[in-house]
Amino acid sequence: MREFHLLQHVFATSTDSEAVLIGPGDDMAMVRVDESSWLAAVDQLVDGRHVKLETTPVELVGRKAVTRCLSDVAAMAAQPVASLAAVTLPLNQTEDWATKLFDAINQTADHYGCPLIGGDIAVHRQEQSPMVVAVSVLAKPGPTPPIRRNGAKIGDTVYVTGRLGGSFDEHGLGRHLTFEPRITTAIELAQTLGPRLHAMIDISDGLGRDASHIAEQSNVTIEIEANSVPAHDGLDWRRAMSDGEDYELCFTATGVVPDRIADVPITPIGRVTARNDPSSSPVIVRYGSEMFDASQLGWEHR
Amino acid sequence: MREFHLLQHVFATSTDSEAVLIGPGDDMAMVRVDESSWLAAVDQLVDGRHVKLETTPVELVGRKAVTRCLSDVAAMAAQPVASLAAVTLPLNQTEDWATKLFDAINQTADHYGCPLIGGDIAVHRQEQSPMVVAVSVLAKPGPTPPIRRNGAKIGDTVYVTGRLGGSFDEHGLGRHLTFEPRITTAIELAQTLGPRLHAMIDISDGLGRDASHIAEQSNVTIEIEANSVPAHDGLDWRRAMSDGEDYELCFTATGVVPDRIADVPITPIGRVTARNDPSSSPVIVRYGSEMFDASQLGWEHR
Repeated sequence: MREFHLLQHVFATSTDSEAVLIGPGDDMAMVRVDESSWLAAVDQLVDGRHVKLETTPVELVGRKAVTRCLSDVAAMAAQPVASLAAVTLPLNQTEDWATKLFDAINQTADHYGCPLIGGDIAVHRQEQSPMVVAVSVLAKPGPTPPIRRNGAKIGDTVYVTGRLGGSFDEHGLGRHLTFEPRITTAIELAQTLGPRLHAMIDISDGLGRDASHIAEQSNVTIEIEANSVPAHDGLDWRRAMSDGEDYELCFTATGVVPDRIADVPITPIGRVTARNDPSSSPVIVRYGSEMFDASQLGWEHR
Repeated sequence: MREFHLLQHVFATSTDSEAVLIGPGDDMAMVRVDESSWLAAVDQLVDGRHVKLETTPVELVGRKAVTRCLSDVAAMAAQPVASLAAVTLPLNQTEDWATKLFDAINQTADHYGCPLIGGDIAVHRQEQSPMVVAVSVLAKPGPTPPIRRNGAKIGDTVYVTGRLGGSFDEHGLGRHLTFEPRITTAIELAQTLGPRLHAMIDISDGLGRDASHIAEQSNVTIEIEANSVPAHDGLDWRRAMSDGEDYELCFTATGVVPDRIADVPITPIGRVTARNDPSSSPVIVRYGSEMFDASQLGWEHR
């Protein structure tokens, strides 16, 4: 199953509608009714794929179910408003555990200003069937119109927030469970840069792969300096660009950009150049005199 | 696992917020930002619980994933605007099947005026793990403020749309896969009755159980005449009230109500009376001179 390929099919065949201002294929979609625009996105947390129930405290399972989706809100520089959670539980799960899961979902949603307004609970019919949590978040535009993936311009500098790589430790725990969705940073960034902030995405699949979404949708090339990529301690640039689940932001902008916003370091890592050959790699990494195709550095969630 | 009990806990612990006009616990929630109010709900379709993948055409799987949620929109007399789908696929499912599933979701969503604006796809890590589809629908209020569960008044007549019972045949197929969500009927009903339409719910768990949600939340008793309940051919009132997954509407209203709206028959089945004893049954069925507690007639989805 090629998840990305299938999603592309879904997005290509979804119908245009006057109400849909941003259709599927970005971090969030935007819908307009009357004078009001709303953003929405959905994300899933599947046991065995995005989290290991066996070794993960239930509080962090519920937290990640919500924060994954909030990272999409940050990527649009939007403001979360409300959330919905659909949970399918294993047959042998206790009600006590399920209650703790929902308490964690509730608390996380409240903490980030998007209280849980609806939910659905189902229980699998067979033993061993894994937990699935789908969280949808509703948001309103932040200080600027939503920052999309398709706005990168030739000459832009490319930046990332925070540091990358190593979000999973050997037990399946680590930063992928405790990361801070960059909502405040994104909103301050949009406030500070205004129209100079051109494109943004959150780094879930790995910097290489996610930057390629910006490059492809903006029809540009992104060139990254390997030595500029801010890696977590002990990791090289390849790990930093490919591990994934960092939930930091990658964005392109012109002009002066502060080196710290809302207490989060902002690092320039490369630049946006023309894409003369559509068959060329959308993301190139320079390491000394060597150049690599980086658009496949990352992993596909499945 | 007591799904309903757990949901009650979730709803009781969810935080009040100024933006939340209708919190969890109704068919949809309503959120207000600036001058604009939106409704949202989520529903799941789990293989083995709500559908049998082995015997069900994939087109009907995708259809039901969306129409289940649209039945909630109808229950509020609201108008669907957009939808999101999160799908976790079995490991051994083909991409062809998955493509057909999304095509059916897309087409159904388009047909009912709520184009798919976002999606997420995951694949289970192990064989035999069942498909889970979570669909969220965004809606806007219809011709009246949303019709809630808690508005039933003493003296109201209780009605249902269509006929009830027998929605699952012996192969797991049947009307639960092909029902028409009563959106048009609900909107015409709200237009026709205006403020005389007091409370509404869709019948997913069975008339007895769903009517009890209206009775409990409105703090009234609902008395149903067994012989008035419109059953599908060959079914008695017990089956009609308990089979579930009818996706018809049950509502309470005063004054004259047409016996047909948008080509759907409307049948009076009982009345709303005072609830003097909180420990008494919220829903009573009269069958000749006998009286039954009907609030447990129905089944809990799990």
